[in-house]
Amino acid sequence: MSRFWSEVVHGLTPYVPGEQPRIEGLVKLNTNECPYPPSDAALHAIAAATGEGLRLYPDPEARALKEAIARHHGVPVSHVFVGNGSDEVLAHTFHALLRHPAPLLYPDVSYSFYPVYAKLYGITPREVPLADDFSLRVDDLLAAGPNGGIIFPNPNAPTGIAMPRAEVERLLRANMASVVVVDEAYAEYGAESAIPLVAQHEQLLVVRTLSKSHALAGLRVGYAIGQPALIEALTRVKDSFNSYPLDRLAIAGSVAALDDADWLARTRERVIATRERMSAALRERGATVLPSAANFIFASFPGRDAAALLAALREHKVLVRHFKRPTRIAPFLRISVGTDAETDALIFALDAILR
Amino acid sequence: MSRFWSEVVHGLTPYVPGEQPRIEGLVKLNTNECPYPPSDAALHAIAAATGEGLRLYPDPEARALKEAIARHHGVPVSHVFVGNGSDEVLAHTFHALLRHPAPLLYPDVSYSFYPVYAKLYGITPREVPLADDFSLRVDDLLAAGPNGGIIFPNPNAPTGIAMPRAEVERLLRANMASVVVVDEAYAEYGAESAIPLVAQHEQLLVVRTLSKSHALAGLRVGYAIGQPALIEALTRVKDSFNSYPLDRLAIAGSVAALDDADWLARTRERVIATRERMSAALRERGATVLPSAANFIFASFPGRDAAALLAALREHKVLVRHFKRPTRIAPFLRISVGTDAETDALIFALDAILR
Repeated sequence: MSRFWSEVVHGLTPYVPGEQPRIEGLVKLNTNECPYPPSDAALHAIAAATGEGLRLYPDPEARALKEAIARHHGVPVSHVFVGNGSDEVLAHTFHALLRHPAPLLYPDVSYSFYPVYAKLYGITPREVPLADDFSLRVDDLLAAGPNGGIIFPNPNAPTGIAMPRAEVERLLRANMASVVVVDEAYAEYGAESAIPLVAQHEQLLVVRTLSKSHALAGLRVGYAIGQPALIEALTRVKDSFNSYPLDRLAIAGSVAALDDADWLARTRERVIATRERMSAALRERGATVLPSAANFIFASFPGRDAAALLAALREHKVLVRHFKRPTRIAPFLRISVGTDAETDALIFALDAILR
Repeated sequence: MSRFWSEVVHGLTPYVPGEQPRIEGLVKLNTNECPYPPSDAALHAIAAATGEGLRLYPDPEARALKEAIARHHGVPVSHVFVGNGSDEVLAHTFHALLRHPAPLLYPDVSYSFYPVYAKLYGITPREVPLADDFSLRVDDLLAAGPNGGIIFPNPNAPTGIAMPRAEVERLLRANMASVVVVDEAYAEYGAESAIPLVAQHEQLLVVRTLSKSHALAGLRVGYAIGQPALIEALTRVKDSFNSYPLDRLAIAGSVAALDDADWLARTRERVIATRERMSAALRERGATVLPSAANFIFASFPGRDAAALLAALREHKVLVRHFKRPTRIAPFLRISVGTDAETDALIFALDAILR
């Protein structure tokens, strides 16, 4: 507390990201990073950009990156906005498109940064409870009354459950007066993307990141796809905030990563295969595992306290994540899909603890 | 215009950064970049960080960078905040510390991003005119009435004129109820830094960037130095906006750059020597050159229209910058200090045009 603070600062409860500990030999399954190294093409492109050119500002529009994203998804460049990770893209989205008198709708179990953004920008949220099977129901969103916007992750986090594209489309048809943001941070691992719906729905914005899908969490590149009126709002806010949120190395590396389609196909396949094996192994051990379309699973172990289980796993040098709230998800642990060896280490540790 | 936009978007007039054209052989003196390559140590550190580690999130606190900044300036780590270029640091500063009922004071001739931030965060500004010699007078700031904060670049941009530290201190002694932000983007080129005053003045925040001083405009690293209460406000806003604004390569490179004191001393000396030679050459040709403590000069050529002169220089492949407003600076061009060869090219082009 300080008399120098702007009023908004007093009420902020910042988002707390998963730990980034530096412990030798730790099996790190707590922040949904991709377990495989990024594309060699991306690393080579970064190396090529590491030189005298760094004395110059980056392209403030990051045109090369927008073009790579447009190629990757088959959309016009005018439909693309880029930012410093999808977190920055989401922040600008809340500021530019979701700040209206009517409340903003999002699921009660969802990305825990949403309420933080809402607070930062003075937006009133209304949480829509997930169904008993932890799925997000379009009818529940539509029954929530007038809204100033809707945002949800697809697949949802931390449940991993995906909404079919047909359901997203049904939502868009029934909700035309406010922006619908589909946060597809994990969509490359099995959800049906809403990107093909952008051309027909002017109120749709799809947000993505290269952190998980392209093993580039350390590079901070996110983007949004929407029709030009939505992109213009984001661009106006971005250009009133920071001209160059993406540095030269991030632009160079992400362009090459997006163009390396083979790497993506190969890595996605490996992660999905390990996810299915891990889910089966956990179910064999009595766990309830929600059906995941992401690179993590959400699992509870009946009769076991999740926080205690997390602590026990940590003693076995396996780090996972636990969310205390809302209380209905408190029995669950969120476990990132690692390499096969990391998955074996997790199972081995669980067997030792559950025995 | 779109019904989907948040209300604030309609009123925004974004900042327009200097061009980043890709023209072969262009002498680029328009965006105040350092004309020399960054430290080899920085490039090596980036190369060493370009690998599998990029699949992991960066340290959200960028602790290694804060420690390097603390070493560089001899301040406690708890006095340091870091961000994606000083533009992001300034944006968070406006949001976290300068949003109060009383107006924010800044010079009428100043960094043209300030009014943009003010608009973005709904802050009422009051511009304080520079004196006739284009200097910023402490007495004029103090005579402007109650304020919710004061911000100014030192040296000022685009004039290049520095305020002595004793004057900054006099301002701090007379203005204790609101935050005073000294934006030292160009301070390494000759101004007296206000950083030594931070320990004694809880309302002082000094903002810096590695863009100009360390030839790393392409890497996007900025920081602020202030007492912990101010740093906490910035951290709360940052952690409600984007957990990881600095990627792993930016952190690695900037730490090494800050630790390379020899590079900084050598480069600073070269830039200052060229600035003085360039100022003298322009004065010999009849120009009015304001006394610069930055890595650019602000010069007018009596009887010459500045916009026309910029266009003529561009035809000679020399790019400089012109600000139309406020009208009292319209006769001036802002010219970055380049290499000796670039300075010769500028003089050669000017001689051809003015002949």
